[in-house]
Amino acid sequence: MSQERTEISQIGEFGLIEHLTKNIEIKQASSIVGVGDDAAVIDHFGKQTVISTDLLLEGVHFDLMYTPLKHLGYKSVVVNLSDIYAMNATPTQILMSVGLSNRFSVEAVTEFYEGVYAACEKYGVDLIGGDTTASQKGFMISVTAIGEVAPDKYVKRNTAQKGDLICVSGDLGGAYVGLLFLEREKKIYLESPGVQPDLEGESYVVGRLLKPEARKDIIEFLDDAELHPTSMMDISDGLSSEILHLCRQSQLGCVLYEEKIPIAEAMRNAAFKFEIDPTACALSGGEDYELLFTVSQADYEKLLLNEQISVVGYMTEPEQGTHIHTKGGNKHVITAQGWNHYKK
Amino acid sequence: MSQERTEISQIGEFGLIEHLTKNIEIKQASSIVGVGDDAAVIDHFGKQTVISTDLLLEGVHFDLMYTPLKHLGYKSVVVNLSDIYAMNATPTQILMSVGLSNRFSVEAVTEFYEGVYAACEKYGVDLIGGDTTASQKGFMISVTAIGEVAPDKYVKRNTAQKGDLICVSGDLGGAYVGLLFLEREKKIYLESPGVQPDLEGESYVVGRLLKPEARKDIIEFLDDAELHPTSMMDISDGLSSEILHLCRQSQLGCVLYEEKIPIAEAMRNAAFKFEIDPTACALSGGEDYELLFTVSQADYEKLLLNEQISVVGYMTEPEQGTHIHTKGGNKHVITAQGWNHYKK
Repeated sequence: MSQERTEISQIGEFGLIEHLTKNIEIKQASSIVGVGDDAAVIDHFGKQTVISTDLLLEGVHFDLMYTPLKHLGYKSVVVNLSDIYAMNATPTQILMSVGLSNRFSVEAVTEFYEGVYAACEKYGVDLIGGDTTASQKGFMISVTAIGEVAPDKYVKRNTAQKGDLICVSGDLGGAYVGLLFLEREKKIYLESPGVQPDLEGESYVVGRLLKPEARKDIIEFLDDAELHPTSMMDISDGLSSEILHLCRQSQLGCVLYEEKIPIAEAMRNAAFKFEIDPTACALSGGEDYELLFTVSQADYEKLLLNEQISVVGYMTEPEQGTHIHTKGGNKHVITAQGWNHYKK
Repeated sequence: MSQERTEISQIGEFGLIEHLTKNIEIKQASSIVGVGDDAAVIDHFGKQTVISTDLLLEGVHFDLMYTPLKHLGYKSVVVNLSDIYAMNATPTQILMSVGLSNRFSVEAVTEFYEGVYAACEKYGVDLIGGDTTASQKGFMISVTAIGEVAPDKYVKRNTAQKGDLICVSGDLGGAYVGLLFLEREKKIYLESPGVQPDLEGESYVVGRLLKPEARKDIIEFLDDAELHPTSMMDISDGLSSEILHLCRQSQLGCVLYEEKIPIAEAMRNAAFKFEIDPTACALSGGEDYELLFTVSQADYEKLLLNEQISVVGYMTEPEQGTHIHTKGGNKHVITAQGWNHYKK
């Protein structure tokens, strides 16, 4: 971080907005009016608009002790774009609101926005609006992402069919193990501030937590392969929690196979250091932002073209319930162990 | 407020969302997918999409000591719809995110949403998404409003022309004086908790603060009268601050006449009780959510049809600066005294 410190009060709210938005370049032809008016205007040229919003709060969703502000800005955008891709749509614009206490300088906010703009650049979306306000305490982020989809090509959660294959992109559980490492190092640091954090060899799992990516590539692959998922959602709360949503909303059951759940070697090794089961991390750990989707069995061959997609099970009649077959040959009922911010 | 108290942790995040959204009825044909998926889907049928977002924080934007939760829910929606109307567009959908500490029960959140739904009903907009999360402390609200406008019929801030008439809807300064009353009664209550608040006769100004309305009627009138404003914005920070934005963005100057600024009799009397100048309240008080717009002089006759519209001045060459002519015959430079959350 830069060593200079400019108080936000020195430049005021409008000065801050001007400072943060002056270099915006509009990339999307659909962005007609951007930052600087009461509202933004978008022309979707006959496409349908897809929209999603997330509220991220310091101390609940992120810890600034181990989250660099630039990464936080990047991630805040990415997690919202992930929701747009999960509808089989293409994100085009975002609105970004921040609440900031006087603990944050103009330099700190600038760093956060560097991450925001890096994500906008990478995913080709325009920042077209938002709100900036003081907060009494802490950092609050609200992101709204807008996307577009050809009429009726969006994919919902409640349209899976019996017999459909259950697919997962990438690998799961990494972000959760990354969080365990960072929490451990934070605890050590708080007890002995002189000790340098030891994250050697854990860059994969730490990166999964601090700098996730949205699966734009998977949506593009599905389109190129003319493979239309029958249902889809992103995995923000862990595979068990999400597959249960999908089953409930589609009024179906499912069977998952533990051995088919994609787990990265780096994650497996990291989980063993904490003496926890990698499969449990994949099922219950959150924040992987991979895609969970179902496809017709007739599309199985097409899936083989992409090694980033794993078939982990299939949808069943609702009467058959929701089960996972373990490597050891046992059968367990799937329970939601996803994150619940309100749990005590 | 109901006397029952159900902890949010008893029903969980998904239980809370289900409880708050189960009675939603979709009114807009354009709302294709609403609450319950990764994102909502909107079809604007060839119209342009207008979008705006606001972040409202307890202790900064509202004080729950004197703000009933139902009013807060109503106002949170209305202030955002006001931004959509200020683009000459019609709001169609909202997304509502809330961050809640464990101080808030399910009953309290339900009350807040009663206000949200009342505003949706009144303005004919659909609640189609949002986010619900725990907060460490306080109540946070993020609202995103979406609207539609016929192609290129939106009205920006930077398009006023020299000689245009400056118009204001309704009357100004009421919300600020209402705030002064509520802050006074709060202070008295904190010093002597037994004393009942004395707001007798102040229902007009208190109502202006706690239950503002967006000027849907003015937008409809302008459309019916075929009167296309040359520029427009809503008045959330006080007339001086807003007219300076409009002048700066349109690269023009202006002349305002104090005697033309619309002030309600009830506001004038209330201001005198605090020994403050009603004109100062109208110029610098925030949260009136009236519309400020400019029209061509050729449209003057049409304005006379609506007594809710006051002509308060005209736009000039930028070299002439930004001035107000007082009732006493003096001429002052207009200075922005609007609310700045970061000011110390």
